[in-house]
Amino acid sequence: MADERVEVDYHPMWEALGMDLPAHDALLGAVGEMYGDIYLTQENRPESTGYLDFVASNIHSGRIKEMVDAKGSGDATKVIGSFCLYVPEEVITACNGISVGLCSGADWATEQVEERLPRNTCPLIKSFTGFKLGNVCPYIESSDLVVGENTCDGKKKAYEYFGTLKPMHVMDVPNVHTDEALAMWKSQVRQFAKRVEEETGVELTVENLRAAIKQANDKRRALQRLSATRAADPVPISGLDSLLTVQAAFMDDPARLTDAVNAMAEECETRVAAGEGAAPRGAKRILYTGTPMAVPNWKLYNIIEKAGGVVVGEEACTGYRYYKDLVDESGETVDELLDAIAERYFKINCAIFSPNPGRVEDIVRLAKELNADGIIDCALQFCTLYEMESADVQAAAEEAGIPCMHITTDYANEDTGQLTTRIQAFLEMLRPRR
Amino acid sequence: MADERVEVDYHPMWEALGMDLPAHDALLGAVGEMYGDIYLTQENRPESTGYLDFVASNIHSGRIKEMVDAKGSGDATKVIGSFCLYVPEEVITACNGISVGLCSGADWATEQVEERLPRNTCPLIKSFTGFKLGNVCPYIESSDLVVGENTCDGKKKAYEYFGTLKPMHVMDVPNVHTDEALAMWKSQVRQFAKRVEEETGVELTVENLRAAIKQANDKRRALQRLSATRAADPVPISGLDSLLTVQAAFMDDPARLTDAVNAMAEECETRVAAGEGAAPRGAKRILYTGTPMAVPNWKLYNIIEKAGGVVVGEEACTGYRYYKDLVDESGETVDELLDAIAERYFKINCAIFSPNPGRVEDIVRLAKELNADGIIDCALQFCTLYEMESADVQAAAEEAGIPCMHITTDYANEDTGQLTTRIQAFLEMLRPRR
Ligand code: SF4
Ligand code: SF4
Ligand code: SF4
Ligand code: SF4
Repeated sequence: MADERVEVDYHPMWEALGMDLPAHDALLGAVGEMYGDIYLTQENRPESTGYLDFVASNIHSGRIKEMVDAKGSGDATKVIGSFCLYVPEEVITACNGISVGLCSGADWATEQVEERLPRNTCPLIKSFTGFKLGNVCPYIESSDLVVGENTCDGKKKAYEYFGTLKPMHVMDVPNVHTDEALAMWKSQVRQFAKRVEEETGVELTVENLRAAIKQANDKRRALQRLSATRAADPVPISGLDSLLTVQAAFMDDPARLTDAVNAMAEECETRVAAGEGAAPRGAKRILYTGTPMAVPNWKLYNIIEKAGGVVVGEEACTGYRYYKDLVDESGETVDELLDAIAERYFKINCAIFSPNPGRVEDIVRLAKELNADGIIDCALQFCTLYEMESADVQAAAEEAGIPCMHITTDYANEDTGQLTTRIQAFLEMLRPRR
Repeated sequence: MADERVEVDYHPMWEALGMDLPAHDALLGAVGEMYGDIYLTQENRPESTGYLDFVASNIHSGRIKEMVDAKGSGDATKVIGSFCLYVPEEVITACNGISVGLCSGADWATEQVEERLPRNTCPLIKSFTGFKLGNVCPYIESSDLVVGENTCDGKKKAYEYFGTLKPMHVMDVPNVHTDEALAMWKSQVRQFAKRVEEETGVELTVENLRAAIKQANDKRRALQRLSATRAADPVPISGLDSLLTVQAAFMDDPARLTDAVNAMAEECETRVAAGEGAAPRGAKRILYTGTPMAVPNWKLYNIIEKAGGVVVGEEACTGYRYYKDLVDESGETVDELLDAIAERYFKINCAIFSPNPGRVEDIVRLAKELNADGIIDCALQFCTLYEMESADVQAAAEEAGIPCMHITTDYANEDTGQLTTRIQAFLEMLRPRR
């Protein structure tokens, strides 16, 4: 974002997308400044994180142009946006569509939003609603179809409204992990596939679907490889850069992203071997768990890392949950492949599931694998699901003997001082576990 | 509640149920006083509402003794409690169980509750958790099984905790009104039936199930009949008494309740013919819609009616939704009858459904049928679902030309003054519609 307005003038493109140009300029300016303050002030970054700076500077401009051009030239069919990890990107990319994440990480048009949604709504929901009402998100505006999902109460109801502003398809995500729920979810994946076929005019085949699965799996393998390097002390890459890598995966071209992540993983492996770190050896190591963090919500990671801690993993949709499971590539029919997709996505341990024991198991296991000294469990304000699960997280962490702190926060900066104090105190009382 | 501690000493029974006696005495005292202030100050009540005073004075004492005695003598199998209109009482009563509603309408043990649940939790969820933690609810304590349901985020997660305190069965309620969701719901009803059979040791038969359906339908018919009289001006019965009638239906013996409601309906029909009212002719008429109101949450109705308005109907689970649909009695096998039950319950227009157009249709139709001058749409604080649906309610009311006011409130009395002012202003600006 830093300098994306310098070289080419993207204003005609944004205008053609129906965006509010002055508002969008203001947003870009603010995010660019944040990026500079938060990211470019980091020391000892792996060189390969240059890719992340590229993504950041390109995210609202070059990447959008690429998408628009690809559609124009027939290289891509449609842009399909989604808000949740439960929406299978493979189905979209198999139909030569471009899959983009619309999760939104900044307050926008709050007054307009609060005319339609209750004040007590989680900032993520307010944000995507505000980005739409304010016409400042080029991903929303360039999406031909937006895919929602019945997950939490707030999103479910907010999509009813969002659907009056954009063409939408809503997937019904189960609440329980039973065979019956899985069968119903498989049928939801099929209905989604049908809708994407209709929208793109491309029929799913074993070839295009298997290729799409392979592409997504490659991305996941690269992210797993990068994540594994974070077990080392000193940790070769910061939490901020790791978070941005996953955030980038929701928006950037999958092949480019995968190459870049593999390059980052390779450099990090070399760094580990050489004992080189993004944070000093012995820096207090945190596992993050909780609600997702959409661009540009870097607030908490920034506080943790500016306080001398380092985030070594994230049990979250903007982290481990995004890359932990691969889709079985062996199916020999479209049906088998769609089933494999449904099965893989069904394993995402979101707090919408009741009960959701897999999540706390993942948290404890990840904390151990990544040698975390402590866990920070965070819920966006008014997120009932993650707030309520925090008691289970706390109990599991206690049983495992890992200190755990719960935080509730939003996208504003009012609580930054208070959070900093709490996090500093938490980091101080942690003992290195290895 | 008024004088239930006078005649018999129920303390040994409460003690045997494991209740906290001093705390329960305090609760009963407070509720009894509220009842006196709110109910017994009403003028021109139908005589037959004496039944309601009986229920109110009996609710924590005589009725519990009746239930406990019935179990002891073999006249009933088990007491099964539930929190939501989606749990089919027919299945319980067919197995000779006693079905009781556990929805809770008063703050209790709030500090203890907030150690486990987020402060931003709706008062209803806090209340049932607090009633359990404080051991003050004889219905919870006498329940052999408690039935939860995956409806809103908060209840779903709170039941995970409640299930650590009481034996629980959770029904998975769908989020969408599709054939697929109905099929899944039918299977949920079957799983529930199996659990109730196991719990009670009674097998469902065409005979016992059909008799239970008929009993529940009779109750619904009586409530429908009473509701119909409220279309008259002057209205023969207050909103407060009508609300308590449905609240009583969750707790009292079904046959006794049905007889009493028929007697109330008959008296109200006579009153209508004679032009006699519980409120003066021309009193501003309100349709209530929104979240349920559990005993002793009479706050809003009291404000409306003490301000000179009258509630003539309620599109809510403590109202119309409870009695609007009958179960088809014609099934000839247990399976057919269970399907009929599932189909009937699937029609409840709860805000958990997305989309939920049936609810706004019901609101507008009811407002017209009952000659409401205005609509008050109310959500309990932090209830995302009903808060978010309020925009649809507002839009539908506007289109129908019926003034509509949205209120967010809780169980505390802090906002009583402010609500009174708002409601007085709303009532004043209403024009009689007939
Ligand atoms: S936290 Fe749950 S609802 Fe949110 S993106 Fe992840 S899977 Fe979807
Ligand atoms: S953070 Fe919580 S409330 Fe917000 S969208 Fe995600 S699950 Fe829903
Ligand atoms: S409002 Fe919905 S969740 Fe609540 S009792 Fe009624 S049907 Fe159940
Ligand atoms: S009032 Fe709303 S938040 Fe509270 S239990 Fe009912 S549906 Fe859930």
